[in-house]
Amino acid sequence: MALSNSLKCYGIKRGKTGVGIAVIEGRIFATYTQNRIKAAPILFNLKNLGKRVRGIIVNSGNANAFTGEEGIRKARKMAEFLSERIGCSVNEIAIASTGIIGRQLELDEIEEIGREVYANLGSDAESIEAFARAIMTTDRFPKVTKRVFGDVEMVGIAKGAGMISPNMATMLAFIFTNARVEKMDAIFKRAVNHSFNKLVVDGDTSTNDTVFLVTTEETETDEKKFEDELTSLMLELAEMIARDGEGATKVFRVFVSGAKSDRDAELVAKAVVRSNLVKTAIFGKDPNFGRIVCAVGYSGADVDEKMSLKIKSRRGEAVLAERGCVFEKNIEIGREIMEDDTVEIHIELHRGTGKAYAIGCDLTHDYVELNSKYTT
Amino acid sequence: MALSNSLKCYGIKRGKTGVGIAVIEGRIFATYTQNRIKAAPILFNLKNLGKRVRGIIVNSGNANAFTGEEGIRKARKMAEFLSERIGCSVNEIAIASTGIIGRQLELDEIEEIGREVYANLGSDAESIEAFARAIMTTDRFPKVTKRVFGDVEMVGIAKGAGMISPNMATMLAFIFTNARVEKMDAIFKRAVNHSFNKLVVDGDTSTNDTVFLVTTEETETDEKKFEDELTSLMLELAEMIARDGEGATKVFRVFVSGAKSDRDAELVAKAVVRSNLVKTAIFGKDPNFGRIVCAVGYSGADVDEKMSLKIKSRRGEAVLAERGCVFEKNIEIGREIMEDDTVEIHIELHRGTGKAYAIGCDLTHDYVELNSKYTT
Repeated sequence: MALSNSLKCYGIKRGKTGVGIAVIEGRIFATYTQNRIKAAPILFNLKNLGKRVRGIIVNSGNANAFTGEEGIRKARKMAEFLSERIGCSVNEIAIASTGIIGRQLELDEIEEIGREVYANLGSDAESIEAFARAIMTTDRFPKVTKRVFGDVEMVGIAKGAGMISPNMATMLAFIFTNARVEKMDAIFKRAVNHSFNKLVVDGDTSTNDTVFLVTTEETETDEKKFEDELTSLMLELAEMIARDGEGATKVFRVFVSGAKSDRDAELVAKAVVRSNLVKTAIFGKDPNFGRIVCAVGYSGADVDEKMSLKIKSRRGEAVLAERGCVFEKNIEIGREIMEDDTVEIHIELHRGTGKAYAIGCDLTHDYVELNSKYTT
Repeated sequence: MALSNSLKCYGIKRGKTGVGIAVIEGRIFATYTQNRIKAAPILFNLKNLGKRVRGIIVNSGNANAFTGEEGIRKARKMAEFLSERIGCSVNEIAIASTGIIGRQLELDEIEEIGREVYANLGSDAESIEAFARAIMTTDRFPKVTKRVFGDVEMVGIAKGAGMISPNMATMLAFIFTNARVEKMDAIFKRAVNHSFNKLVVDGDTSTNDTVFLVTTEETETDEKKFEDELTSLMLELAEMIARDGEGATKVFRVFVSGAKSDRDAELVAKAVVRSNLVKTAIFGKDPNFGRIVCAVGYSGADVDEKMSLKIKSRRGEAVLAERGCVFEKNIEIGREIMEDDTVEIHIELHRGTGKAYAIGCDLTHDYVELNSKYTT
């Protein structure tokens, strides 16, 4: 059966407060932030949410984090609001929140908007986009994508922008599908690890990060094919989030090879993608490879000077260093390559066979502007 | 004998290139960056520098890092330039470089300026300041301070600004004294650890960080008193560096107490001081304690929600949370307190007796401006 027959969505944003609701019956898989301070909705899900779900309710504008017992009580109220309408157990409702930390939720406002959202649930693309728009905070555009192969459908919705960093470490993402595969749990975890977990916007791991996958399990499909498509969908969402990183003008990908181990490669990729000096150089279209070398050096990985560095974009590629030898004359070419809005940095360490990659965005005036003004 | 009789300094900055020279005979103690990619001057010192020194030569504008064999050869030439003039062994010369990474040193220019510097060496305050000015890169002001107690004198000079982060992790600092204490090596290491190693400007650990302490050992003194004064002098230099962090408008100190261990406390202090979201909130004078809570949560330390948070400055103090309870009405007071150019964040975790502190600066438009334009 087509996913559109099983999934109903809608959302409304009013001022800073938004509510998104999705009604779908199926199995749910979830991953949450690794931050030790977990928001109330996550604590609620961890305690109450079973293996099957009937609906999801999300609010934006308030993270319901660092809100104590009162926060947990309100999170439960949010779930009850939806379970009463659907006519199901509160344990079949998944919830999420995003926004400011340390403020009590205005439940009345959320319920008021929620009633209107519930009355307007729909299955078309507009309804899905309304959900995506309602959960935005500092996002500049809604993030929706899909995949269709054979009878399998997959819809992905995400929000991102700030406080995004490795370690589950993302934002809110919702994936709905009708696919049935046996090892869904393992596939889900691997796909998250190869997509959202490669993403660093500002290195701050939020208290609220959540990825939900809900499947109606109506359509049997090939596991390998499904995993590839799921990973590709999540990667696309992750790149949308990077593209929309607070103030970002460019996405960059860091590919590390030749490390002593995959773990070493990951240390290097994360250090480079996280470096404020690299991020501002990307913003300034400046092939300042010295900052890359520096980040490689302090990453904690076992590295030496004899690395090779290359930058690439749709405009071409430039080898900046080969086994520690700098090609100064290629720097001007590098500058031209960095005009593109997506830049790749390739680092070959010549120490082994370890590989990794990471996705990030530049650090700009607008990041500072947004985050010095995003008021308490 | 007074330190001024033993220490001769000078420096000249011409365009982007600066040379500073200090001539002093004494024992030298050094700490270097923990970055795996060490600049050529550090590799030179590690290999050649003995326990006693006759002179120090420093250039600014070029880090002589990621420069291979050629870089090492040029570092040696820089040392020889000074050893020939003093008439000592090259193993009695300490060197340092700061500036752009991955470019070969223009030795001719350095020697030309160096000759003029050497001809103008002096012992007065102006000569010391000239040295401090010559080694500046993106620094906005020279960093010099001193301590005098009894017959003991101590002069400290530093440069900082960008690429500053934990792990030795600083910049260039030079401390000259006439004090003789027995366990100088241990005292030096502890003092560095309690000052420069608490400092995070942008989390990027440079390839060139160096702290030198040179003592003529002419004046016997009390160890405890000396250690206190040395630590205080280094802390003052560290705070000057934070104050002059690239684009910085505010210094902030993070004090963590009640952690399960000192290590946990340090994880928390470093995570908070390093968080771009906290740093932009400090810039925006916004007591956005949610971002602090978030950083505490992802620091890796064993923490829970029941923390207490307080901000302080010369303008007063505001308790923002007590054992997990938020005091919303104090937020406006917090805003007023954050008008000061030095702000303290106090975090009590109520989990044990572990303590730590860290020093940082805000993240501003000018940081982005400087670092997106500081050209390769």
